[in-house]
Amino acid sequence: MPPDFDTNMRFKFSILALFLEVVVIVLYGIFVEYDTNSATNLYPHFQDVHVMIFVGFGFLMTFLKKYGFSSVGFNMLIAAFGLQWGILMQGFWHMKRGKIPVSIESMINADFSTATALISFGALLGKTSPIQMLILTLLEITIFACNEHLVTKVLQATDVGASMTIHAFGAYFGLAAAFVLYRPGLAKKHENDESTYHSDMFAMIGTLFLWLFWPSFNSAIANGPEGQGTAIINTYYSLAACAVVTFALSSLVDKRGKFSMVLIQNATLAGGVAVGTCADLAIHPFSAMFIGVIAGIVSVLGFQFLTPVMASKLKIQDTCGVHNLHGLPGILGGIAGIVVTAIKRETRNGHLLTPAMQAAALGSTLGIALVGGALTGAILKLPFLGQVSDQNCFDDSAYWEVPEEETVPEIHSSHRDERSRFEAAM
Amino acid sequence: MPPDFDTNMRFKFSILALFLEVVVIVLYGIFVEYDTNSATNLYPHFQDVHVMIFVGFGFLMTFLKKYGFSSVGFNMLIAAFGLQWGILMQGFWHMKRGKIPVSIESMINADFSTATALISFGALLGKTSPIQMLILTLLEITIFACNEHLVTKVLQATDVGASMTIHAFGAYFGLAAAFVLYRPGLAKKHENDESTYHSDMFAMIGTLFLWLFWPSFNSAIANGPEGQGTAIINTYYSLAACAVVTFALSSLVDKRGKFSMVLIQNATLAGGVAVGTCADLAIHPFSAMFIGVIAGIVSVLGFQFLTPVMASKLKIQDTCGVHNLHGLPGILGGIAGIVVTAIKRETRNGHLLTPAMQAAALGSTLGIALVGGALTGAILKLPFLGQVSDQNCFDDSAYWEVPEEETVPEIHSSHRDERSRFEAAM
Amino acid sequence: MPPDFDTNMRFKFSILALFLEVVVIVLYGIFVEYDTNSATNLYPHFQDVHVMIFVGFGFLMTFLKKYGFSSVGFNMLIAAFGLQWGILMQGFWHMKRGKIPVSIESMINADFSTATALISFGALLGKTSPIQMLILTLLEITIFACNEHLVTKVLQATDVGASMTIHAFGAYFGLAAAFVLYRPGLAKKHENDESTYHSDMFAMIGTLFLWLFWPSFNSAIANGPEGQGTAIINTYYSLAACAVVTFALSSLVDKRGKFSMVLIQNATLAGGVAVGTCADLAIHPFSAMFIGVIAGIVSVLGFQFLTPVMASKLKIQDTCGVHNLHGLPGILGGIAGIVVTAIKRETRNGHLLTPAMQAAALGSTLGIALVGGALTGAILKLPFLGQVSDQNCFDDSAYWEVPEEETVPEIHSSHRDERSRFEAAM
Repeated sequence: MPPDFDTNMRFKFSILALFLEVVVIVLYGIFVEYDTNSATNLYPHFQDVHVMIFVGFGFLMTFLKKYGFSSVGFNMLIAAFGLQWGILMQGFWHMKRGKIPVSIESMINADFSTATALISFGALLGKTSPIQMLILTLLEITIFACNEHLVTKVLQATDVGASMTIHAFGAYFGLAAAFVLYRPGLAKKHENDESTYHSDMFAMIGTLFLWLFWPSFNSAIANGPEGQGTAIINTYYSLAACAVVTFALSSLVDKRGKFSMVLIQNATLAGGVAVGTCADLAIHPFSAMFIGVIAGIVSVLGFQFLTPVMASKLKIQDTCGVHNLHGLPGILGGIAGIVVTAIKRETRNGHLLTPAMQAAALGSTLGIALVGGALTGAILKLPFLGQVSDQNCFDDSAYWEVPEEETVPEIHSSHRDERSRFEAAM
Repeated sequence: MPPDFDTNMRFKFSILALFLEVVVIVLYGIFVEYDTNSATNLYPHFQDVHVMIFVGFGFLMTFLKKYGFSSVGFNMLIAAFGLQWGILMQGFWHMKRGKIPVSIESMINADFSTATALISFGALLGKTSPIQMLILTLLEITIFACNEHLVTKVLQATDVGASMTIHAFGAYFGLAAAFVLYRPGLAKKHENDESTYHSDMFAMIGTLFLWLFWPSFNSAIANGPEGQGTAIINTYYSLAACAVVTFALSSLVDKRGKFSMVLIQNATLAGGVAVGTCADLAIHPFSAMFIGVIAGIVSVLGFQFLTPVMASKLKIQDTCGVHNLHGLPGILGGIAGIVVTAIKRETRNGHLLTPAMQAAALGSTLGIALVGGALTGAILKLPFLGQVSDQNCFDDSAYWEVPEEETVPEIHSSHRDERSRFEAAM
Repeated sequence: MPPDFDTNMRFKFSILALFLEVVVIVLYGIFVEYDTNSATNLYPHFQDVHVMIFVGFGFLMTFLKKYGFSSVGFNMLIAAFGLQWGILMQGFWHMKRGKIPVSIESMINADFSTATALISFGALLGKTSPIQMLILTLLEITIFACNEHLVTKVLQATDVGASMTIHAFGAYFGLAAAFVLYRPGLAKKHENDESTYHSDMFAMIGTLFLWLFWPSFNSAIANGPEGQGTAIINTYYSLAACAVVTFALSSLVDKRGKFSMVLIQNATLAGGVAVGTCADLAIHPFSAMFIGVIAGIVSVLGFQFLTPVMASKLKIQDTCGVHNLHGLPGILGGIAGIVVTAIKRETRNGHLLTPAMQAAALGSTLGIALVGGALTGAILKLPFLGQVSDQNCFDDSAYWEVPEEETVPEIHSSHRDERSRFEAAM
């Protein structure tokens, strides 16, 4: 391993993490206060979102055969730091008498903010160090909070399930960073960049908890019981239709008609992303199902045909295919929002929603994500951030103590048997 | 593989699934409308049931060593299609001004309806194609909705936790189909029809989420907070007593006194099934515990002694043993309902519950399930539905792209070492 | 295997378990009645705690390579019996007209009571039989209920998240029992006392569900929405800070800077334990984070430096390191309670909380736990309780039917190939 790829981050990582934690605690001491007057009736929604962030995103990424510890572990690290940072970054835009009040609702929003960094992590999975991911989390959540303020307060666009501000933002931020961090050495498929039978099973834990609790994600910050109920119903049906279509297309795009775990794990979720922007609008269940169908089609085709092209032609290596799960379906959600507000008169807090503002929100989100992601990628290129060599990508053992393989001792013993019998025979 | 067993379902499956999805969307466009005036306070119950259907049932069936993708994947497919179909089939019986209103409560009922197909899937696990399962789901949910209407509206029987209408129905429907689809070639134990250490661990994820959230299943559609509270308490204690008894009997029926994972994964849940019919009646916690004890005994004895006999003598091959988890405990629940309404005067919506009507409900459920399951099995016997040969049963690779075994490369390399050393020695 | 280590518990275990279940049902028949007038709004909290007990604790302990069935299975057995017993033991202290009312709240408390036995199980993991664990559960929950009554009713101390009464109690009870049950034969590391890649992944399921739902644990029995909201917020931030610090220190204490799964699985949770006692007090979020930081530091250092010394010098073999996850952070929580009540005037039910009473609560808890655990350990030393020999420790096959290893058949076949080729060559 050349000296440029020194993955021993003993002091670098621990000092950075401790420093950030101290900074956060000091800022909380100065700015944060309880807001326990607000309702706790959002608590079940909060817990569903919380499970999505830590179990859903975490296990979804465990599909790689040797990168499970990093997937679920760094996911936890990013989210645990990000949820603290998110309260501050979102709170600075809405301070009350110089203070940031913390309630169940702001905790939901903080969990949301971490999702952007976790989506970007999916694009970079296996190729970045924990130091790089902490820096990315810090920067991405900061930029996310600015864009979210722009979209929801300045442009006054609707994006209740955050198709644009979280999913498209996180995906294109990550893809821009992946472009800057392009590794020519990974142009040929890395031997660790694949799944095993059990790693695919672990990933299904992530898929299912994301799929099941997505209605909570899209409805958590909807207005009142009616908006929440509509968001729950729309998301439920969009996901159901998307799942059926994903199975259909997964079989159709394979020449032997076999299902692909990559598609079932990911594309079944695209319906939840795409229905996000207009989840709480009374678009009718069949429209939600239609959005889910389109999302499933776009996502399957993206995984099957676009991701290989992006890697080879555009030099964007997207490990988890976040472009197909969050990027394209997020744009689809933004477009659905434009279409719905063009067709139907919809208001939000007494303010008319217009297709122009929805389009501006989508455009600003994509622009800020791409620029922010590229700049962040450039910063992550700094040396001494503990990145791995190409050869050690997608391998936990660069950053983790990994137990010996289960099978090794038994093979060794069989080995020994073989040899002794062999020698005896000689 | 003979031409009758062509598992390449590239066009057959995808066209069927897309066709069904289009039909469903059109029917939703015509008949379905939001009902968001109704309460959202059932949402936590809904999410618990949702987790049971997708994670609980899905992972419970992952115990087979090479059938995990199909178990959790087809479970998702069946449930995602079934929950859309269920709203329509149940809704046609209760239309309001020509429309089917969708609310959290009707979404719970739709999730319930998918459970019947998932239980039948358990009996047929490893032996049917996704095309066959889509057809079964379509037919079974349709017939279930008719029987449920008969039981609850015509006979006005009580079955709040659906011991009869879901558990017994799904089990006997699946067993009748399994009888019609009997495979003599599987009379000897198939080498894939067994678990591995890790597949048994994955199955415990399913068991635990089913066990934990069963009180939500049995109380979700109970009347008011008092009925719900009673159903929660009764189910909690029935399950707890059943779990302890299952451990006791699992040791007792083994000549070396060892626990069996099959029993712990399944029979511990029988208490939730058996207490279902009278879960919301004030039968006293100790009666609930007594029902749980009987359920545990019946279920363990069924797995241990009945399932082998059913396969060899009755030609009913029940892969997951749904007869012991859902069939017998479901009947037990129906009988408990008869006994309780005979002893105590209980009313439901101002209507007196009578043992005669409870018995009629149980009888009609069993009769309709057996006839419906047998007819469905006959339809599934049609050629060209993508079924597997006996040899390829219980094997994901018939319908899935499966990653190479984790151990294979290492064995190969040991292989190579061996050979080269061998050759060197020669 | 010498006759002293007869792990065939066919009749002993099943008769004990059935006897205990019958005793419990009779006692429920005499003493227990429904209390469904009380609110069901705690039901989502209850379900979160329920998941922690069965999935959280159960899977957290599956890290051992050959002890997954026992970890998740005996965890289920202990909890299913313990929650029945806990209602009785806690209820006898608060009977109303000779009856013990059962409500969602008392079910939460019963689930809590099982946590003490599960924590002690963690210290003894791999070294005790199911018979021993049933006896321990019976005794520990009985003693726990007495200590809890002493702490909350007699001393009127606060311990809303049970840092002292559950975590410290369960840990020191288990450690005292482990001391009495010391096995010199395990002084050298047992070959089964380690994890594999996939067993560590299963354990992360437990870690994450514990981490996520800990705010529900600490707030479940807090007074009113404001107390609950405060407890949720404090626990959330304590855990988040603790997780970041654990990652930092895990890298720092390793000479190559690599993360350790043991630390990530366990020490990340210490913040939830330590903030428990004063979780519902308005100590400010930054104080909660500070408590989490200290808990993370103490826990990591404990795992790294204290556990090996305790095993070698103090003859306390603590399989899961419960001293570092529950013991030390529990004491830290008790001390935090003393400090907070010394600094701020806090009342509970109109009663002033004093540091003296908090200190008395901590002292009595530790004293009763150590004495109770030692006595229980002495009882468990009785012969004929089915304990395993040192050699068979940490191995499911002592008490479970275990499927053949996945790799064995393939190695065998490679074996056969080798041999036949060898013979052919000869």
